Amino acid sequence: MRFEEARHREGASALARLGDLADRYRRVRAFSERLSRPLAVEDQVIQSMPDASPTKWHLAHTSWFFETFVLSAADPGYRSPHPLYGYLFNSYYEAAGERHCRPRRGVLSRPTVEEVREYRRHVDRHLLALLDRAADGEAPEWAPGVELGLHHEQQHQELILTDIKHAFQANPLRPAYASGSSPLTPFPLPAGERGLPGERGLSGWISYPAALREVGHDGSGFAFDNESPRHHAFVGAFSLASRPVTNREWLAFMADGGYTRPQLWLSEGWKTVGAQGWDAPLYWEQKDGEWWTMTLSGMRAVDLEEPVCHVSYYEADAYAQWAGARLPTEAEWEVAAEDCPVAGNFVESGAFHPRPATDDGSTPLRQMFGDVWEWTRSAYLPYPGYRPFAGALGEYNGKFMCNQFVLRGGSCATSRTHVRRTYRNFFPPDARWQFSGVRLAK
Amino acid sequence: MRFEEARHREGASALARLGDLADRYRRVRAFSERLSRPLAVEDQVIQSMPDASPTKWHLAHTSWFFETFVLSAADPGYRSPHPLYGYLFNSYYEAAGERHCRPRRGVLSRPTVEEVREYRRHVDRHLLALLDRAADGEAPEWAPGVELGLHHEQQHQELILTDIKHAFQANPLRPAYASGSSPLTPFPLPAGERGLPGERGLSGWISYPAALREVGHDGSGFAFDNESPRHHAFVGAFSLASRPVTNREWLAFMADGGYTRPQLWLSEGWKTVGAQGWDAPLYWEQKDGEWWTMTLSGMRAVDLEEPVCHVSYYEADAYAQWAGARLPTEAEWEVAAEDCPVAGNFVESGAFHPRPATDDGSTPLRQMFGDVWEWTRSAYLPYPGYRPFAGALGEYNGKFMCNQFVLRGGSCATSRTHVRRTYRNFFPPDARWQFSGVRLAK
Amino acid sequence: MRFEEARHREGASALARLGDLADRYRRVRAFSERLSRPLAVEDQVIQSMPDASPTKWHLAHTSWFFETFVLSAADPGYRSPHPLYGYLFNSYYEAAGERHCRPRRGVLSRPTVEEVREYRRHVDRHLLALLDRAADGEAPEWAPGVELGLHHEQQHQELILTDIKHAFQANPLRPAYASGSSPLTPFPLPAGERGLPGERGLSGWISYPAALREVGHDGSGFAFDNESPRHHAFVGAFSLASRPVTNREWLAFMADGGYTRPQLWLSEGWKTVGAQGWDAPLYWEQKDGEWWTMTLSGMRAVDLEEPVCHVSYYEADAYAQWAGARLPTEAEWEVAAEDCPVAGNFVESGAFHPRPATDDGSTPLRQMFGDVWEWTRSAYLPYPGYRPFAGALGEYNGKFMCNQFVLRGGSCATSRTHVRRTYRNFFPPDARWQFSGVRLAK
Amino acid sequence: MRFEEARHREGASALARLGDLADRYRRVRAFSERLSRPLAVEDQVIQSMPDASPTKWHLAHTSWFFETFVLSAADPGYRSPHPLYGYLFNSYYEAAGERHCRPRRGVLSRPTVEEVREYRRHVDRHLLALLDRAADGEAPEWAPGVELGLHHEQQHQELILTDIKHAFQANPLRPAYASGSSPLTPFPLPAGERGLPGERGLSGWISYPAALREVGHDGSGFAFDNESPRHHAFVGAFSLASRPVTNREWLAFMADGGYTRPQLWLSEGWKTVGAQGWDAPLYWEQKDGEWWTMTLSGMRAVDLEEPVCHVSYYEADAYAQWAGARLPTEAEWEVAAEDCPVAGNFVESGAFHPRPATDDGSTPLRQMFGDVWEWTRSAYLPYPGYRPFAGALGEYNGKFMCNQFVLRGGSCATSRTHVRRTYRNFFPPDARWQFSGVRLAK
Repeated sequence: MRFEEARHREGASALARLGDLADRYRRVRAFSERLSRPLAVEDQVIQSMPDASPTKWHLAHTSWFFETFVLSAADPGYRSPHPLYGYLFNSYYEAAGERHCRPRRGVLSRPTVEEVREYRRHVDRHLLALLDRAADGEAPEWAPGVELGLHHEQQHQELILTDIKHAFQANPLRPAYASGSSPLTPFPLPAGERGLPGERGLSGWISYPAALREVGHDGSGFAFDNESPRHHAFVGAFSLASRPVTNREWLAFMADGGYTRPQLWLSEGWKTVGAQGWDAPLYWEQKDGEWWTMTLSGMRAVDLEEPVCHVSYYEADAYAQWAGARLPTEAEWEVAAEDCPVAGNFVESGAFHPRPATDDGSTPLRQMFGDVWEWTRSAYLPYPGYRPFAGALGEYNGKFMCNQFVLRGGSCATSRTHVRRTYRNFFPPDARWQFSGVRLAK
Repeated sequence: MRFEEARHREGASALARLGDLADRYRRVRAFSERLSRPLAVEDQVIQSMPDASPTKWHLAHTSWFFETFVLSAADPGYRSPHPLYGYLFNSYYEAAGERHCRPRRGVLSRPTVEEVREYRRHVDRHLLALLDRAADGEAPEWAPGVELGLHHEQQHQELILTDIKHAFQANPLRPAYASGSSPLTPFPLPAGERGLPGERGLSGWISYPAALREVGHDGSGFAFDNESPRHHAFVGAFSLASRPVTNREWLAFMADGGYTRPQLWLSEGWKTVGAQGWDAPLYWEQKDGEWWTMTLSGMRAVDLEEPVCHVSYYEADAYAQWAGARLPTEAEWEVAAEDCPVAGNFVESGAFHPRPATDDGSTPLRQMFGDVWEWTRSAYLPYPGYRPFAGALGEYNGKFMCNQFVLRGGSCATSRTHVRRTYRNFFPPDARWQFSGVRLAK
Repeated sequence: MRFEEARHREGASALARLGDLADRYRRVRAFSERLSRPLAVEDQVIQSMPDASPTKWHLAHTSWFFETFVLSAADPGYRSPHPLYGYLFNSYYEAAGERHCRPRRGVLSRPTVEEVREYRRHVDRHLLALLDRAADGEAPEWAPGVELGLHHEQQHQELILTDIKHAFQANPLRPAYASGSSPLTPFPLPAGERGLPGERGLSGWISYPAALREVGHDGSGFAFDNESPRHHAFVGAFSLASRPVTNREWLAFMADGGYTRPQLWLSEGWKTVGAQGWDAPLYWEQKDGEWWTMTLSGMRAVDLEEPVCHVSYYEADAYAQWAGARLPTEAEWEVAAEDCPVAGNFVESGAFHPRPATDDGSTPLRQMFGDVWEWTRSAYLPYPGYRPFAGALGEYNGKFMCNQFVLRGGSCATSRTHVRRTYRNFFPPDARWQFSGVRLAK
Repeated sequence: MRFEEARHREGASALARLGDLADRYRRVRAFSERLSRPLAVEDQVIQSMPDASPTKWHLAHTSWFFETFVLSAADPGYRSPHPLYGYLFNSYYEAAGERHCRPRRGVLSRPTVEEVREYRRHVDRHLLALLDRAADGEAPEWAPGVELGLHHEQQHQELILTDIKHAFQANPLRPAYASGSSPLTPFPLPAGERGLPGERGLSGWISYPAALREVGHDGSGFAFDNESPRHHAFVGAFSLASRPVTNREWLAFMADGGYTRPQLWLSEGWKTVGAQGWDAPLYWEQKDGEWWTMTLSGMRAVDLEEPVCHVSYYEADAYAQWAGARLPTEAEWEVAAEDCPVAGNFVESGAFHPRPATDDGSTPLRQMFGDVWEWTRSAYLPYPGYRPFAGALGEYNGKFMCNQFVLRGGSCATSRTHVRRTYRNFFPPDARWQFSGVRLAK
């Protein structure tokens, strides 16, 4: 649903849904708090690279979003707790004014974690009051902004997890995010399943005939602007792997010189391999001849049956070259996903890590949703007829349509209520700190 | 025509065409020499940025290409004049071994210009002898390599011009490449046409209906691997501007704050504007309130009716935003080009600069070919079913399919015999030193 | 006193002084804690530039120093609380093994502030027990290491203040370190003294005749290795300014184009002015046409009578050029300091900021000690006959004798018991974040 | 002799010396031409690093020096051949206006080599005419400028050699500057002397008693401003090695882990070793287990008895640490040089490379002059009472007195008529491309 059209269309139904919106607001906001609970105050301040942000910055920025795009517009009496919060917690909205330099978010000790929590409570009080007042009158035009703000906050919940994972790996002490004492149950790996020598089953190929298809979001329910409009696309015959590439398969790629043969790589990818010294997925470490990986629950031996994770587009593409296959286009992925339920290993499982595929017979394609984001070979570009959200929110997605690739399907750090079949995630081809994996096509 | 298939298919006809090939070899090689003739020895040594190369490097590298991909394979007795030439003049072929660092090509004073010319003569002697010997026997399997080498050399002929233009601008003395004494006639701008206040005619829109189309090269005659295979694509209804954007229109964009309003720009584009201090197309300079531009024939006042040139994808996209339009996709461009003759202001005109559109009534679309390369909004990606050339030549195109955009149609620095309707040129979105311009779509 | 000689010479007297040493140990260690008390947990984690370190790193590193250079040698049963603390808290001692990358100290959230405090208590328990046991027996050879460790900790106490000042300035909220509620009394600026238009008295010149002098430390009491040996130096006739340059004088320099005239500057200095955009001392900001400065007690209008502070060697040298004078050599400074009591505005005053000179008639030279470190024109080089401390501690001072300049006299952030007439502080010529000022000579 | 005093003092005698000056002008200028003769046009254009300059730039800049500091002042009718030559060929004189960016000197193909030669002839004509006219009248006040210009040109003659050596090493073809056909006789290494296993004699130590000395230039004859004034310095007792460190000794240092033991190095030096990957002097290469070195006459096996050359201050200091010695101060060097004739292996020998010491019994100290510049442990700082040349020429030396070290004695690339006992050369501690070596002291 496009944001600006939404303002009008929502009308009648929105009113009825305001109560539901307030409930969801409370749930989503509380989940952010819950995610930060296992962290020490010190953990919430640090920034391990320019692309990542401190936890407390995420907690504040998502509040700033409601403040800026809902409260400031809807409530003339609203005042931010501090006149500089707008400067500190604007991420990239040029239309919302100057902002603090992104790579320097980790040098801000103030506001403190407690002051940020107070900021959240301040915004919550005003926003819930606003929703409460609106319940008596006409459908408010700011309601879609609340909806957008919740999806926005869910995106940052995923980043809270990926960013703290990156930060913890920068520390030789290798702190664990989730432990036994965590309120979120850690990933219970089935006994006897680690590093089994036997293969649990080859990936199969599922075939799809050539056809003129429709892809993109049809306007029923929430979607980001970049998923619209729904449009025709000719999709040639293709086959999709029945499950993502596993660590076992990735180790075979590595053993076959995957990271040392330039012929397999895109030119920019090969440069990155050299400059960054890549020889395995991010977070993998070799100890005594065995590969270990850092997870949010601490260091673990690499599980051979898990989907490979934390690989870049460059690596995904090189792997596909090596395997004599290719990555799917996003249209192919979307066509195939039509028959798959939006279910899987999402953040709610508390695993915070991809799990091996299980064959429950329910669908030929396994793990299309959850576990790992799947790189497509589609550059992140506007759909035919794309129009960005109106106003400052037009900067939400459109201005990043350059030098990025689309990922599909969500990961173990994504909320189940956040993802869709038409959902287009995007990252530059060298990004590895997201839970990103590979599904082959041919 | 795909290179490896070509080896077989060429068979019968190739033999008959060998004589023609030798003729074309002589002509193309001679044109490289001709292009370097107006240059001093000193001019041919320098390198003004990592993306550009010295003239003498282009002259040597194109010879190395024939040596490596034809002579070394076809003539066991062939010896390069120097065992290190392979190291010095390999551009980016990993499979062809180690090579000299690209940004350091300008620190190589040796081989001298004269030694490079001798290298060229050495290669020419052997290659023409090879062609001569082959004329008596069976169709040789290396013949497609000669064909490819000629198209490769034509690409570098264009780079000789764009690179020396960049180098000359780095010199405050602003040397001119083409002057009255040049063997190539300089661009004779019609008298009284510079900076006319009146507009010479608005651009119109040519409309095309939605349809399932075929795009890509069909295999008849030479084409690069990246143009194949010909495949179906659904192209929605669209309109294309009847001519490229002119300097007059670009000045209106600038006057309206085009370079100062972040809302018009892609995020990466806006960063580049700031980092590079862009406020006009490359080679424009303001003197006494008037805009001048450096051309290969020296400094000139900006001609309002010429197509704007030396703009990046970022600028092209921002302009389109400002104009309420967009850039075409490469499929749209190719569909529209079907009715246009491959004719226009190419390098053979000796102008070395785009010319104002003329309405000769022959076609509703003007300047589709020649004058300026036209940025499309299509990322440079493999066509469905794409297979690179076999062997080391597989690195020719495929490994660059990342973070680049496609340009179409050729420029005033392109050879007429080099370009095609299906031709896909590609550059990163911040590149400006090619003769690149803008045609709008909607 | 040289460290290794000290081990033998200390002998008899050391035993008697062990009780005193334990007392001083407790006092110095407690002062570090006291300095960190006004800080939030968040403040103690951040690092605003590679040259600065987080508060908790300073607190841990100084403990590591005792652990590594005393406890590990003297107490075979001693165990560090964590096997990686040695890696995390080694600053630059190659002989003590690998260490964490300096510019990445601010990405370490663990150990937490509380864990660092526990580390300090752990070291304190063991070190005080060691001192206690030693009181019964022979003079221990590790006692000079304790002495050195205390002076080392005092150096880091000064850095705690200068580093947090730098970090706070990186935050647009401009937090204040010391406020009314601080246990350390903030600087009480006398009423009516801010920005007085009248000058409080010109600086005079004190003259010294040419003579063959002795400079350097004579071995009585503690000194760093770089202050020895005492040696002859011919010091020509010179005059020294009776007080440091004031903000009033600095503003005159600025008003006269001080930061815009390359003729006044060293070549490297002028490059730095351009690259860093310097136009005033560090921490100065212009608001409504008036100059303000950030202090550890918050923002304040620049006090005209205070010594100028937070200027680099480059600025100090340019100012001297402008004033028709020069900076003193360290030998000149030391000769002049012979008659001055080691007294002044040190960290114990709780001002954390330089104060205006007062003329109490006690000495012709004012503010030689405390307030601001004074740049000399002497490069930081070894004295004739210099020998570094033995073993790993040889890295303490000697390996930095390159591309740095000597500063003398201590500052408002230095402990009174830390500085000496022969004390040689040193920083690179572009460093500004120390409390560094200027005294002229001619 | 200080430049401004010179203007008055020269008076009477200058007139008599003008004829001599014209002779020397012709000789020095001709020698620059002679040095460029073995070079191809291409060689004279390239720049291999920011610190080095193209040959043709040196040839033009030295002419610009006479133009700017003599002709423009002395001859109101003088015109430069091109209004932009001042911009292109000003090196670093802020007072002489804006200038071309130093690291981009290698992108200037124009003026061509021949145009630069014409520039030189233009300046020569006018300057010799000026000298000729002046011979009839009063002593001209610009005469010291001519004198300075000649010494300046001799400095650039040395740079022509060191810079082209660096440029040639950047080329895998390893061109040789001087060959058999060169007008300058190449270095004839005595037969049978390469890599002799036997040692040709240990270096001895020459001792000097402590004394109050006078150092610096006394004003008789030409000297740069930085050599004045002559002043007292107390120089403690010291010993100086009888000859520079040889390659044989350097190989022992390398074999003993010289480049791998951080304890031997200054902190900045050790960082540079790591960042630059130093494991031997510049221009050394290992082939088949043997060390070779690039010389201006081509590649050669390292001669064990030659003074080690092309080492930085960092390396010189580390070597001295390893040898249990130290580098001399510049005062010590100057005291010792008092008894040595200014004679040795200078550029006039045509060797362009240091030679092994020979013991001709004439002096206990060998090779104090020529062969290699000798690093001292003295930072390059002003002498007490230093005053720079007046006007723009004040930038000649004074503004570089920061982060550099003094070298003494001249090298095989220095003109014999250029160097003096009081001559202070200076380079940053990481510079290696000069002919710089090591003499130990203790």
